[in-house]
Amino acid sequence: MTYDDDVVTVLSHEECWELLREAEFGRLAFRMSDEVHLVPVNYAVDGDRLLFRTAEGDKLLGVVMHPDVVFEIDDYDERSAHSVVLRGRARRLEEDEEHRADEIGLRPWLGTVKYNVVEIRPTSVSGRAFRLEH
Amino acid sequence: MTYDDDVVTVLSHEECWELLREAEFGRLAFRMSDEVHLVPVNYAVDGDRLLFRTAEGDKLLGVVMHPDVVFEIDDYDERSAHSVVLRGRARRLEEDEEHRADEIGLRPWLGTVKYNVVEIRPTSVSGRAFRLEH
Repeated sequence: MTYDDDVVTVLSHEECWELLREAEFGRLAFRMSDEVHLVPVNYAVDGDRLLFRTAEGDKLLGVVMHPDVVFEIDDYDERSAHSVVLRGRARRLEEDEEHRADEIGLRPWLGTVKYNVVEIRPTSVSGRAFRLEH
Repeated sequence: MTYDDDVVTVLSHEECWELLREAEFGRLAFRMSDEVHLVPVNYAVDGDRLLFRTAEGDKLLGVVMHPDVVFEIDDYDERSAHSVVLRGRARRLEEDEEHRADEIGLRPWLGTVKYNVVEIRPTSVSGRAFRLEH
């Protein structure tokens, strides 16, 4: 990633995936009924897919009803910021696929709850870096 | 904010606003056409409203067409995480109101672009803190 004279730099596909593989915490936006929902999730990359765990509830119901979701990670410091936005289709993994989450070291941050594993198959990934002004 | 034996702690209204006032970077989810969009924004609190700047484009068009938006901030470290989610209605400020953004010190992070100021009037605010397991 390079910061040149431009305020906004478009990240390459590879740079986006590098950032996605480095992070483990992002936000998922999805529709449920006619409302937009936005929730934090911890996730991990499995090949070209994202996996996250979720308890039964709104998040799971939403992605089952409206599988087109948007996922975002970002970070910033005093000098620069970046954001990667991934659009994709979500589906709940079958029980015999859930081992994939363990194999990639997806952290069960909240250990007391029964989880389902949701996979996001990306349809587009884009990222931007910003040089911040002060 | 206290972390007790519970894995998830519901934050009070005041705790949510304290976190909102401390941060300056969040994410906005909104609808445009039939799609959900999710973008990072820098923002500031003005009384009981949020303000952010945006250039002409999708973000502005989206909140004008579908003013019901969701805004989220979060942070985490090795031990804990928190997230505050605010639902509200967005509107573009008139030119004679835009000075409010300057008065609260909303940083124009990307200084080269002509900005509009958007206000979010909250209809609900909720927050949760998570004790993380390892």
